[in-house]
Amino acid sequence: MSNKMVVGIDIGGTNTKFGLVDEDGNVLVQDKVNTAAFKKVEDFTHVLTASILQLALTQDDMELVGVGIGSPNGNFYTGTVEFAPNLPWKGVVHLSKLFHEAFNLPVALTNDAKAAAMGEMRFGGAKNMKDFLFITLGTGLGSGIVSNGALVYGHDGFAGEMGHTIIKEDSNRLCGCGRYGCLETYTSATGIRKSYMKFLAEKDKRAAIDPKKIDSAYIFQLAREGDEEALQAFKYTGHILGLALANAVTYFSPKAIFLFGGLAQSGELIFKPTRESFEKNLLKVYQGKVKILHSSLHDGDAAILGAASLIWNELSLVS
Amino acid sequence: MSNKMVVGIDIGGTNTKFGLVDEDGNVLVQDKVNTAAFKKVEDFTHVLTASILQLALTQDDMELVGVGIGSPNGNFYTGTVEFAPNLPWKGVVHLSKLFHEAFNLPVALTNDAKAAAMGEMRFGGAKNMKDFLFITLGTGLGSGIVSNGALVYGHDGFAGEMGHTIIKEDSNRLCGCGRYGCLETYTSATGIRKSYMKFLAEKDKRAAIDPKKIDSAYIFQLAREGDEEALQAFKYTGHILGLALANAVTYFSPKAIFLFGGLAQSGELIFKPTRESFEKNLLKVYQGKVKILHSSLHDGDAAILGAASLIWNELSLVS
Repeated sequence: MSNKMVVGIDIGGTNTKFGLVDEDGNVLVQDKVNTAAFKKVEDFTHVLTASILQLALTQDDMELVGVGIGSPNGNFYTGTVEFAPNLPWKGVVHLSKLFHEAFNLPVALTNDAKAAAMGEMRFGGAKNMKDFLFITLGTGLGSGIVSNGALVYGHDGFAGEMGHTIIKEDSNRLCGCGRYGCLETYTSATGIRKSYMKFLAEKDKRAAIDPKKIDSAYIFQLAREGDEEALQAFKYTGHILGLALANAVTYFSPKAIFLFGGLAQSGELIFKPTRESFEKNLLKVYQGKVKILHSSLHDGDAAILGAASLIWNELSLVS
Repeated sequence: MSNKMVVGIDIGGTNTKFGLVDEDGNVLVQDKVNTAAFKKVEDFTHVLTASILQLALTQDDMELVGVGIGSPNGNFYTGTVEFAPNLPWKGVVHLSKLFHEAFNLPVALTNDAKAAAMGEMRFGGAKNMKDFLFITLGTGLGSGIVSNGALVYGHDGFAGEMGHTIIKEDSNRLCGCGRYGCLETYTSATGIRKSYMKFLAEKDKRAAIDPKKIDSAYIFQLAREGDEEALQAFKYTGHILGLALANAVTYFSPKAIFLFGGLAQSGELIFKPTRESFEKNLLKVYQGKVKILHSSLHDGDAAILGAASLIWNELSLVS
């Protein structure tokens, strides 16, 4: 009997990672190509297909059964990547179609946070859950929302942009989307940096530090060493995140909220103030019911795994 | 052939309205009993059952096929009404069970806003929609959220409390839930009254007006006559509602948002500032895609119709 495997593809602005994932959620082999090098999406698909087939040759008795893709601005309904500011291909790109032509296999595509949420549901801590939120705290804030056992896509496939809820109307924090005060300008790697700079400035300490050195990893290091403003930045970030999550609960009443990504790796520094603010701001009917948890997916291959889950899910629904 | 009908029951703190609803969404006959008069829920069920049977006698060739109930704090999953502050029965009341025993028919129960959302989907403006929000602007703000063709209930049945998202952290507006700054302290009949009083006070006009006279209907009247602070109160309310709805869209990407209830009856006075703020605060990918509409349900029987829809829906899924 051959081993069935799904290709999981995680498209990023710099690199595209891909791997072969078995039915138990093991990423058996993986590799990457440089996304930015391909000005034409057809060249990208061509080289990626060849690289995937090469990867497949390393496996004995292997049968490819589908291709799952996670991409920024990926639309599940149409299989397209639409106006992705950080990818080299402009406009609307029919990525699913191109991969279907290359492999003649089922192809499913969605955005990276939704793919990871799917991975958490199929292989991670959300295995027995029908209602949960999956939040990625990276450069921005991504969200994959599962309600009644299914990802929330909305009428056009673009639901789940929690990072772009406006949480402070009079905010001076400009978001990548062109508006001010979006959640991700506070509770992301970019956000905590802004908060830290603000607290430095308030204490006239800003001139003493080279702003180029400051990123979320550096602030994490400082906070662990007891630096006052770094600790303040974590508390502030957690406070805002906890309130935002408490508000999200009023819509979905999830069983749990999973945090993933760089900032979530800071452990209790971010979890403690987040949970405190969350419980404090939660409507009574939800208190004590909703857990805030670490994602159980590995940072390295979560998006590959998630992308592959899309296909494993479809196949298990059919069989 | 007999005419199949469903009983729709709309439980309120003061009155409980009920009626017979046919498959086309006509409320053929209706009546009401005084909820507050029944200290024991068994007495309530007993009298209501008798009244419903009496109503049924007025119809020729009629067959009852189910009972749908909309109730404050109603839980669809368990068929219970839980800790409803405005109903005479304390704790957890197994209302579905009581009505099932009385009629020996399928019984479905949910809260009033979710029932009305169901009515809008089955019989109203959301007939062909799988993703929409239904917002009731009454004394409070209720919400029924439909995602991917189904009501969002969450893991415990208590999802959809949009009125209790905290929209201003430093707000001094105390909500009925015991917290401060909930959306419904701004965008409801109670909320617009608070805003109007605030604008009066800012202009030292408060002493001139008897606060007992002021309710949302009075403010509506004043606004139509061109009163400055009343107009300001509508603008402010619409501004906040528009922003809150724009934020809700980032979660659900709905095709439309339906507004229902007293405040929605104020027409353009509330719709114009709401739509303006909504479009201004909407993330680019949603702009121009999401309509804000009047609910097409009649204020008088929306909850009866909605409650009945729960059953018509179940029956049509089976057949």
